[in-house]
Amino acid sequence: MRTPPTLENRATPYLLIDLEVAEANARVMADALRNRGISLRPHVKTHKSTSLARIQRVLGADGITVATIGEAEVFIAAGFDDIFIARPLWITADAAAKLDQLTLSANLRIGVDSRRGVQSLAEQLQRRESIEVMVEIDSGQHRTGVHPSQAGPLALHCQSLGLRIAGVFTHGGHSYAGPGAVSRAAADESEALETASRSLEDHGIAATVLSAGSSPTALELGGGVTEARPGTYLLNDRQQIALGAARLDQVAAVVATRVISTAVPGQFVVDAGSKALTAESSSLVEGYGFVRELDGAVVTRVSEHHGIISYQGTPPPEGTLLHVVPNHICTVVNLYDQFITQASDPITIDARGHLT
Amino acid sequence: MRTPPTLENRATPYLLIDLEVAEANARVMADALRNRGISLRPHVKTHKSTSLARIQRVLGADGITVATIGEAEVFIAAGFDDIFIARPLWITADAAAKLDQLTLSANLRIGVDSRRGVQSLAEQLQRRESIEVMVEIDSGQHRTGVHPSQAGPLALHCQSLGLRIAGVFTHGGHSYAGPGAVSRAAADESEALETASRSLEDHGIAATVLSAGSSPTALELGGGVTEARPGTYLLNDRQQIALGAARLDQVAAVVATRVISTAVPGQFVVDAGSKALTAESSSLVEGYGFVRELDGAVVTRVSEHHGIISYQGTPPPEGTLLHVVPNHICTVVNLYDQFITQASDPITIDARGHLT
Repeated sequence: MRTPPTLENRATPYLLIDLEVAEANARVMADALRNRGISLRPHVKTHKSTSLARIQRVLGADGITVATIGEAEVFIAAGFDDIFIARPLWITADAAAKLDQLTLSANLRIGVDSRRGVQSLAEQLQRRESIEVMVEIDSGQHRTGVHPSQAGPLALHCQSLGLRIAGVFTHGGHSYAGPGAVSRAAADESEALETASRSLEDHGIAATVLSAGSSPTALELGGGVTEARPGTYLLNDRQQIALGAARLDQVAAVVATRVISTAVPGQFVVDAGSKALTAESSSLVEGYGFVRELDGAVVTRVSEHHGIISYQGTPPPEGTLLHVVPNHICTVVNLYDQFITQASDPITIDARGHLT
Repeated sequence: MRTPPTLENRATPYLLIDLEVAEANARVMADALRNRGISLRPHVKTHKSTSLARIQRVLGADGITVATIGEAEVFIAAGFDDIFIARPLWITADAAAKLDQLTLSANLRIGVDSRRGVQSLAEQLQRRESIEVMVEIDSGQHRTGVHPSQAGPLALHCQSLGLRIAGVFTHGGHSYAGPGAVSRAAADESEALETASRSLEDHGIAATVLSAGSSPTALELGGGVTEARPGTYLLNDRQQIALGAARLDQVAAVVATRVISTAVPGQFVVDAGSKALTAESSSLVEGYGFVRELDGAVVTRVSEHHGIISYQGTPPPEGTLLHVVPNHICTVVNLYDQFITQASDPITIDARGHLT
């Protein structure tokens, strides 16, 4: 039997996690929110791993957030029983049957932002009284969600169809415009939720939950917010650093890669390309990631299995093991089946591929 | 037992393939290259599916091209016995053991572009005489590969270490600069390989194989080229259309998605975001894909589970099933476990995740 490879001799590219850093990140966020009286419901789409979500839970997360019914199924099967699917979905008959099934073992919340979506949900669920609806509000990202003033009418429509309202939620994703945008986005989230909550009250409906918070904004949310849903904070990435939301020593996951070519002058090439780092660019930074070991070395171009790093001076020789901090860790994790760890077995990314 | 979902009621997003179109694409490329006396060795990283590679094989492919040892393992296990790993790799001890094993069941070729890479390969392989080396040449993409004039010295180094030389290869990826760049890139590929081949001859080494050809350039390769390695042509995508290398009716794979939100004016939102379409932009086109059913509707922004489509006029209502032609199908396929088909069972993407 072959001995398992060490970090040094394992074939690259692989996704490496530092569990101590991840645990520290989990603790900092949980403690900070607890001190502010805000519940933590981390978005597990970042890591898609029931093992990592357990760490978040023991350190104080009250329930989790997911993006798809498939993710909800994986986490509920692993014993998580308080789940929020935080976006509007279009519910097919099969999806409705799955939701009905899941409400037998978990408190399940789902986002809505249209009368038509609500209608379809109410018509297709057999156990519609067992699910809780959250009305999505647009607080400035302009992606999904109704205007705060329209929350009450939509909530009333839900109630009229026999659906229960838990509250209102928003995602202040416009915080990612730059470090100067974070505080404003956090204030927008808080204000939009308070306006929406009043709109519900005006229609005789209580909003128990006011849920907001991306990783950059979670610690700046205002008074009325009851719940935060950061995801990226557990692992962090280059965008979080650029936003001032994390330091380099708080980055818990990197892509391990090796130099495979130095043949073209002015650059070297590593074996992490768009299938290992994604080709996701960012308005905050140039390129697709930076090399942790080499000051100023940025992955400037990617093809599928090549990361091209512009570099003046003597490039590191072929075979050199390097680590890239990617732009956006959530979409990078989505490319892998497991996290490699330094001291223990790999951690399975058990909700990978659950797109629906 | 629940009946399997139809295309209409299946949960979205999913990756839909039209097998008739793929077969037609496979046939056109195979016939055209045969008529030109050039072998076809398709790059299967595009589809990562042994089922689809079988179609390419029966229609005339002579061997296949892969990007990783893991892909080689999957295809060899499925009976493919002539494989070219078409890039420089850094070979760990484990990787060398795998290559040795694979040469027992397949003709295996591997790319090299550095003395150090060659040295490591020769030192670690137990069965070094069973593998064939291809020297990579830079024909203008400036990614990997030696200058054509340096091919001979590197090939000689390989020979001195007991490695066998099959020939030289290049990838004219600079064809993707635009429709005007395709013919020039094809000429560059041909010229670079001929120069490299002469460089080998000058060092007393015969280059049997001169291998080139991306999907846009494959049908414009010059006389000396013996083998073409297109990949994308089987499925096609938005970039191939923009380059003039494919028509819309030759696009064989699209992402099926549904409208989930029309709440924000001037746009609608589908459930295919960067985890379903990638966030890969292109210098050839705006955005991340276009909607096949709606003239001028482009996915202008993506977040992980949201595709935002700027749209003036009445948006299609929530629940509408749409199909997006993505920018680059190879990285999109990499996100899925299967292709959904219209008339038969799903096709497994059996080499998905084999990054190393």
